[in-house]
Amino acid sequence: MKIICNQSELVSALNIALKAVPSKTSLPVLECILLEASEAEGIKITTNDMELGIETKIDGRVDAGGKVALNAKFFSDIVRKLPDEYVIIEVDGNCTAYISCGKAKFTIAGQTGEDFPRLPEVKRQNSISVSQFTLKEMIRQTIFSISDNDNNKVMTGEYFEIMDNELKVTSLDGHRISIRKVLMKDNYTATNAIIPGKTLNEIGKILSGDTDKNVSMYFMERYVCFEFDNTIMLSRLIDGKYYNVSQMINSNYDTKITVNKREFTDCLDRALLLVKESEKRPVIMDIRDDFLSLNMNSSIGNMDEEIAIKKDGADLMIGFNPRFLMDAMRAIDDEEITIYMTTAKMPCFIRDVEETYIYLILPVNFNTR
Amino acid sequence: MKIICNQSELVSALNIALKAVPSKTSLPVLECILLEASEAEGIKITTNDMELGIETKIDGRVDAGGKVALNAKFFSDIVRKLPDEYVIIEVDGNCTAYISCGKAKFTIAGQTGEDFPRLPEVKRQNSISVSQFTLKEMIRQTIFSISDNDNNKVMTGEYFEIMDNELKVTSLDGHRISIRKVLMKDNYTATNAIIPGKTLNEIGKILSGDTDKNVSMYFMERYVCFEFDNTIMLSRLIDGKYYNVSQMINSNYDTKITVNKREFTDCLDRALLLVKESEKRPVIMDIRDDFLSLNMNSSIGNMDEEIAIKKDGADLMIGFNPRFLMDAMRAIDDEEITIYMTTAKMPCFIRDVEETYIYLILPVNFNTR
Repeated sequence: MKIICNQSELVSALNIALKAVPSKTSLPVLECILLEASEAEGIKITTNDMELGIETKIDGRVDAGGKVALNAKFFSDIVRKLPDEYVIIEVDGNCTAYISCGKAKFTIAGQTGEDFPRLPEVKRQNSISVSQFTLKEMIRQTIFSISDNDNNKVMTGEYFEIMDNELKVTSLDGHRISIRKVLMKDNYTATNAIIPGKTLNEIGKILSGDTDKNVSMYFMERYVCFEFDNTIMLSRLIDGKYYNVSQMINSNYDTKITVNKREFTDCLDRALLLVKESEKRPVIMDIRDDFLSLNMNSSIGNMDEEIAIKKDGADLMIGFNPRFLMDAMRAIDDEEITIYMTTAKMPCFIRDVEETYIYLILPVNFNTR
Repeated sequence: MKIICNQSELVSALNIALKAVPSKTSLPVLECILLEASEAEGIKITTNDMELGIETKIDGRVDAGGKVALNAKFFSDIVRKLPDEYVIIEVDGNCTAYISCGKAKFTIAGQTGEDFPRLPEVKRQNSISVSQFTLKEMIRQTIFSISDNDNNKVMTGEYFEIMDNELKVTSLDGHRISIRKVLMKDNYTATNAIIPGKTLNEIGKILSGDTDKNVSMYFMERYVCFEFDNTIMLSRLIDGKYYNVSQMINSNYDTKITVNKREFTDCLDRALLLVKESEKRPVIMDIRDDFLSLNMNSSIGNMDEEIAIKKDGADLMIGFNPRFLMDAMRAIDDEEITIYMTTAKMPCFIRDVEETYIYLILPVNFNTR
């Protein structure tokens, strides 16, 4: 095998491919990238951690086809430190790779790659298309409320639902629910699937956030495929039935408040200073007339703060885990946010009028001082 | 006690003071900052880890004098998150501190501070003065070759020597020696002391790097004091006799090469990719005619690279720990550097003509391939 490509393009491709290299594995070949070159397909890098597989192509010249498996860490560390010039990679019959770039010459041992597990084949049917920006944002705005508890596998993923021209993404962890909806340009057949949180985290990092570039999603029986730029990400789906979330959502309220997000966030930020991992103290929101008093009390100290709000409905005193409120605030882009509540024992809803986002958070019991 | 000061100034002072708060201590009061206020002295923050003590002053209004010891971490975390406005700190008879700023109000418990260990008194005699920039640079350019092995206490510090108008700083770790010299404006009585590496690391972080601002050093029998801006740093000295370094330094050479620092550094950077913690492989420098070939060979792979040099004297093949060469390269600001060598078993010297810096590095044995 002999290929010539640009150093910076090779680095970008490796940065993407590394996301599917497992840090620990019982199958050592998975610690490698599979580098393949052929006249027909060009230069291709494949990685696979058996849950997520990535295949990404690089522009370049193929002087001789072939394939080799190279240790992902060593190879990418070396490539990253090369000057930004053309990189020549030659592999001999013993799978030894000779990497040269400018005056630098490296030699590293590779493997045949025969035992590298192939990615399942992608059926390019019923492609669903959104902009990279939209998908990246939808993931960012919901991923924080998946559960990391493997006992309930379904909660470790996000529920993707396509219905007509609507894409809806839901995550929940037993204390809160996050929902984001967007309208797409086209109508699609109804589909749904539970996508692993790990996959979404990685794709969220790789997507460019470009509104002009699209990502195509293909839902298969046991896999989902994301295709964008020169890259394919293929992930296993989580088996199981997702929760019926719609029955937990309602629009009733007794107290509705509108606050400035910045002010509220700064206030929560300070309340969080008093939170110790070991004790789960709530921040107590005392809603009275046109003011919201926040109080936090822990073994470290005590915080009191008051912010002006617009209120509709009854006064209320209610306690929340301040981290959960903070996560929702970070996900929302609006300057003013509205919180809907009924009683101190019922969940609150943070949502916009069009319901493009809905954050449900369960309250925490507290003792009135 | 009641004081009013600016949030950002308080944050800056705390950032300095925190450098002398120990992360682990058997004396819990050392985890506190001591906050003192009086008409005469203004507002003062003191910290002390028993090796290094810091005292820093803050501009502000003292409405009522007093003192209190507050947990350094909690207090500084809170202050950092306050809005950039005036902070009012009131302390009642039970040492409870009420911190308010804008609409935010915090209450944290403090201690009397009676058991907080006082810093030793500074004798302001024989002050030696250099710019903050100079001292910061001298530390940066030598600190990497102190030893972290506590068995030889003297090696964990740097040797400061003042002779007439010259300040000379030396560090060594058994494999290499780093020396920096500067000329000062004034002449001083001959003085020398071994200053702990930890102290120098911390002061290096705090000094502003400003050429217009000075730092005064006072050498006492068992302490050294650095005074700059509103801050005093007082450190214990290391007891003992430093090595006679001058007898290890000489100007003889058989081979002298001049290389472009950038090219040489990039090359070492790539060689370091192949270095594993567990195996200490040298980079082999093959100096022949007007070229320097660098070769590195490890279990990860092999690297070869050649750079153009100016050579004076004999050809030579010599091996070094690439990290040691790299550390010296990072310390030197010159674009072209000169290395003086005799044989493959004798140390090399990297120095400029005026000897404002001298880096001695011992070579490593290697087997010719």
